[in-house]
Amino acid sequence: MTEPESATPRRRPGGRTARKREMVIDAAMSLLVEVTYEDLTVDAVADRAGVHRATVYRRWGDVGGLIADVFETASDDEWAPADTGSLFGDLVSINREVFDALEVESSLTRTLISASFHWDQAANALRSFWRDRYRRCEVVVDRAVVRGEVPTGTNANRVVVTATAPIYHRLVLLREPPDPAVVEDAARDAVAAARAQVLSG
Amino acid sequence: MTEPESATPRRRPGGRTARKREMVIDAAMSLLVEVTYEDLTVDAVADRAGVHRATVYRRWGDVGGLIADVFETASDDEWAPADTGSLFGDLVSINREVFDALEVESSLTRTLISASFHWDQAANALRSFWRDRYRRCEVVVDRAVVRGEVPTGTNANRVVVTATAPIYHRLVLLREPPDPAVVEDAARDAVAAARAQVLSG
Repeated sequence: MTEPESATPRRRPGGRTARKREMVIDAAMSLLVEVTYEDLTVDAVADRAGVHRATVYRRWGDVGGLIADVFETASDDEWAPADTGSLFGDLVSINREVFDALEVESSLTRTLISASFHWDQAANALRSFWRDRYRRCEVVVDRAVVRGEVPTGTNANRVVVTATAPIYHRLVLLREPPDPAVVEDAARDAVAAARAQVLSG
Repeated sequence: MTEPESATPRRRPGGRTARKREMVIDAAMSLLVEVTYEDLTVDAVADRAGVHRATVYRRWGDVGGLIADVFETASDDEWAPADTGSLFGDLVSINREVFDALEVESSLTRTLISASFHWDQAANALRSFWRDRYRRCEVVVDRAVVRGEVPTGTNANRVVVTATAPIYHRLVLLREPPDPAVVEDAARDAVAAARAQVLSG
């Protein structure tokens, strides 16, 4: 679910401006996994990208603006949750992605979460990014309703948040050592909750 | 569950050193709800407390050290979850405390969470604080086992994390507008999950 994990360059259409944006965002992403967001500077990003510093200041303003654009770039993809044939399988697959994105202390995802506590612009971008990702995840519940696995009227957002929240909570807030058991445990709990009742809208 | 919400002075035993510590910690807590942790300075805390700045530097080192001690002070209480007679009621009561502590953007709890992304010392203190709080919460599951509400062998920690995680996740990470419905929804989901299976240790 957490696509910003990938720091590999993407090919995207567009002319020189688009290529320049791509170079700068790729530079910001690769620097973010090397240094903390507090050590990230516009100058370092410009130098890494090989573009004029003035260009970066003009377009992105500051590091908060750069980080916001990293989220926007990350949202601009075709990501969809895997279709494994069962609600439990689909949630496990989502949870595995979340876990992989969080288990490393220096991961881009963790860095971006930290940054969101520092810059309002990054916080807003993270909120939009997650809103979009959770919306895409809701299809796993729609499919489960069609299969008769869970009752009609099940609140898809609530099921997906119930499945993923314990992973974020344990790894990011409680800072527990990463235990992969949480991937299946949290998915199983969410399925049990969804089956036990109609979670109305 | 989140006792650091209280910024009211506490009376504690001890001599001049203990009283001085209390004054400094109370000053740090009251300043933390007025300014962000980034604007908190050792000097401001010392001035508010009415103690010599050198005393504060000597004992706490920096703002990270002060924040760590705020957590330690917060842990040093008799807090226990309410005993309402049912697992659902007990979890709702815990969740309401968590929700109240988080719903205000400038709350001390949110500020301390933000600070934990900034200072390792604060992160470690927050981890200890939460570990202690979650341990105290587990009694609600023990009581439910005795009443026969949930199977023997239910993993108490997992039930309590399942009940509380969606609140932290929605309010702190996803930054959704606070919706009090999450208090009962998350409690209900945790009870359903606990009832549906033996959550082995």
